[in-house]
Amino acid sequence: MLTRIDHIGIACRNLDETVRFYRETYGFEVTHEEVNEEQGVREAMLRINGTDDGGASYLQLLEPIREDSPVARFLARNGEGVHHIAFGTADVAGAAAAVGGRGVRVLDAAPRSGSMGSLITFLHPKDCGGVLTELVQAREDGPGH
Amino acid sequence: MLTRIDHIGIACRNLDETVRFYRETYGFEVTHEEVNEEQGVREAMLRINGTDDGGASYLQLLEPIREDSPVARFLARNGEGVHHIAFGTADVAGAAAAVGGRGVRVLDAAPRSGSMGSLITFLHPKDCGGVLTELVQAREDGPGH
Repeated sequence: MLTRIDHIGIACRNLDETVRFYRETYGFEVTHEEVNEEQGVREAMLRINGTDDGGASYLQLLEPIREDSPVARFLARNGEGVHHIAFGTADVAGAAAAVGGRGVRVLDAAPRSGSMGSLITFLHPKDCGGVLTELVQAREDGPGH
Repeated sequence: MLTRIDHIGIACRNLDETVRFYRETYGFEVTHEEVNEEQGVREAMLRINGTDDGGASYLQLLEPIREDSPVARFLARNGEGVHHIAFGTADVAGAAAAVGGRGVRVLDAAPRSGSMGSLITFLHPKDCGGVLTELVQAREDGPGH
């Protein structure tokens, strides 16, 4: 059902500085940058490795673009650090339904838009041992690809 | 230098219950369990996917076995959740030296024993944007494999 670690989401105050840290320290490069207005973040995806389901694993660096965004609230409460983890699946709606049927609260009634044209949903961290958990169907995971 | 997300380390209060959550919710299975006396934890490794460097990505579930262990202190301060992230490398000593040369404090003078016969070192989270970061040389990454 879930076939890879798709990404680790990291909250930061300054995206450009954090991108520079990961490039200069480890040599990781930005694959993609975008603004997600709905989630109130500017983000960069750094591809770390390919995965045996045909996908890849990324770091997702997240800077809030407004003070009422979830990532801004996370930073105010916790400071910079790991914000969430995400598992990849070929069918995010089916995986969300399955996980919901096992008693985990799914935070989105229907999948919404994530990075790089993906479809995503979040699970309630209190039902996941304190870990904010995301399910991701990459654009290339979907039908027709 | 760093070729995969090796694992995500998750601190929990009850390893058996947390293993059961990941198995029943997502179908993830335990690949390996061990006690690391030096770090004061009992841990389970759940293999999520293979990686294109010949390794794999895991969740590492960590339960403290004594109150003065770093994971016990993390739980007291933060509650359950993501404790650290780890990148895989074929040469942990070389990677640590390179990263140290770029101004990041390496927390171990020499690599020490990690899960499944690996060699590991930790980097100071204050130098890594709030992310406790580990470098891992899996047993199969090393010479002769």
